[in-house]
Amino acid sequence: MDRRQGRRGEFELIAELFAPLARGAPGALDLKDDAATITIPQGHELVVTADTLVEGVHFLKSDPPGSIARKSLRVNLSDLAAKGASAQSYMLALSLAPWIDDDWLKRFAEGLAADQAQFGVTLIGGDTTSTPAVLTITIAAFGTVPLGKMLKRGGARPGDRIFVSGTIGDAGGFLSVLDGEGARIDAELRDTLAARYRTPTPRTSLGPKLIGLASAAVDVSDGLLADVGHIADVSRARILIEAAKIPLSGALRVLWGTDLEAIIRAASAGDDYEIAFAAPESSRNAIANVSRECDILVHEIGRVEEGEGVSLLDLGGCPVALGRLGFTHF
Amino acid sequence: MDRRQGRRGEFELIAELFAPLARGAPGALDLKDDAATITIPQGHELVVTADTLVEGVHFLKSDPPGSIARKSLRVNLSDLAAKGASAQSYMLALSLAPWIDDDWLKRFAEGLAADQAQFGVTLIGGDTTSTPAVLTITIAAFGTVPLGKMLKRGGARPGDRIFVSGTIGDAGGFLSVLDGEGARIDAELRDTLAARYRTPTPRTSLGPKLIGLASAAVDVSDGLLADVGHIADVSRARILIEAAKIPLSGALRVLWGTDLEAIIRAASAGDDYEIAFAAPESSRNAIANVSRECDILVHEIGRVEEGEGVSLLDLGGCPVALGRLGFTHF
Repeated sequence: MDRRQGRRGEFELIAELFAPLARGAPGALDLKDDAATITIPQGHELVVTADTLVEGVHFLKSDPPGSIARKSLRVNLSDLAAKGASAQSYMLALSLAPWIDDDWLKRFAEGLAADQAQFGVTLIGGDTTSTPAVLTITIAAFGTVPLGKMLKRGGARPGDRIFVSGTIGDAGGFLSVLDGEGARIDAELRDTLAARYRTPTPRTSLGPKLIGLASAAVDVSDGLLADVGHIADVSRARILIEAAKIPLSGALRVLWGTDLEAIIRAASAGDDYEIAFAAPESSRNAIANVSRECDILVHEIGRVEEGEGVSLLDLGGCPVALGRLGFTHF
Repeated sequence: MDRRQGRRGEFELIAELFAPLARGAPGALDLKDDAATITIPQGHELVVTADTLVEGVHFLKSDPPGSIARKSLRVNLSDLAAKGASAQSYMLALSLAPWIDDDWLKRFAEGLAADQAQFGVTLIGGDTTSTPAVLTITIAAFGTVPLGKMLKRGGARPGDRIFVSGTIGDAGGFLSVLDGEGARIDAELRDTLAARYRTPTPRTSLGPKLIGLASAAVDVSDGLLADVGHIADVSRARILIEAAKIPLSGALRVLWGTDLEAIIRAASAGDDYEIAFAAPESSRNAIANVSRECDILVHEIGRVEEGEGVSLLDLGGCPVALGRLGFTHF
């Protein structure tokens, strides 16, 4: 019934703005059909994921439209990367709030175009609707992996080591700056943290290279400890993380310090879009090589044992008492 | 950041309610991972589509939760059917408004379960978020067609005939009843129209059988004339529809009458989820056979000529002056 909402001009503008985003995919039919086709290289299977971002929950209305677009796409590319999949395409379902104007839409499309160029993905379809309330963006993204090789949450074995890419807690750091904690940091560090929150970097080059090395993997969205906890749950194993080994950025160290409280906060904050994974000790050298090839830091932060749950170990090797972490994501 | 919204109990309930919906698909990994895998039978390709339904725009908050679930799924199954695809699975992105309670969620999941059984599809993943505003549901659905055989909007040729399944205008009829036009009809007819609005019937058995017969096809969601107009646009042809041949249900005839105005209204109303398609005259007998096999009425309602646009012909064969129809759907 959207057609009764009288936003015709905007829907036509979207058709104009989005059609160029579909040029790389013949199966997208220039976005002029009800559906798109996807073909998969022989010996591969398709990996699919979907994430919704809601105004006021996952981004701020005042965020630059281009970075809202990019974050919406990147959180999905991060899911694919953590599964070892090479992203190929995505669908975009956009529910437009009344405050959206033509300029916003243009800048949103520009953000998508920039990320398509950076990550080699193509828009293949979707839906645009009006909503009386808040802007809501759902992206479903598609990638491919060699048949049967997708990295899963299950698969970690006692004796495996736990690794994580990049640094942890930066997005949470930026939110704390917005809440007034920024007195200690200068504009440059603030911008560094803001960029980590607004346009996280999905580890698209690293993920596919972990196939054959990692036994289990997850992207860090709910929080490092919560997401490593997902690996523990599905793998039916216990995971120990050493607090001192969790990588914090220089900016976050200035903002929050480096004591145990700061580390716990970083490891619970979420929105990192790094890859946390388990791998046998024998993969350690190969992982170091992959890290260099991709120019992405990878740190060993813990180990897998018999048992269940996730424990954070303090500097003395003693488990820290933690509240319940993160939330269930289906 | 949903985890900061304090809806943990609800997210856990959803995980419990939805896990059984994924049992039919090994690639769904019991919904315990960040992504799912899809495999495609050899010689086939995947057809993907996505539709969003918004509270107050596409359904009413007071609609039964099961029928909101079913409509959300069915509008996607209708898109796949109109492309000749056999549906296999779907992802569900659910943005929960504050008014949603446990009972609502249970009934929503029951609706999905009923339709999964009816249409042979399986939930394979998705995302649940909180929204401060209105319930928003995006479903991305997946089906398969023989390689290169997807029915498209483009492909209609001068000389082809235009056909449509089922009856047209019933959902619009129900909305007019809600607006106070129901004085002429009894409760039974009202319920017939309500069911057509709340739980449209995607023509999943008919669509795949049109491969090899139809030259172009579309599902009727924006309105018969608007959607046939999409075929005309993409096929770069003119389509003539004979008003007298547009099939109206008995209930709608009682409600709106059978004059030209009623027919125009029906053909512009939308939300029909029938299949409109073009096919060469030589396919007519085969189409009649398919119609009988599927037990779905199919009416021939017009023809394709050289030119552009869509025209509605009155009883005397003269084009009716129409306002601009429907809206652009990307």
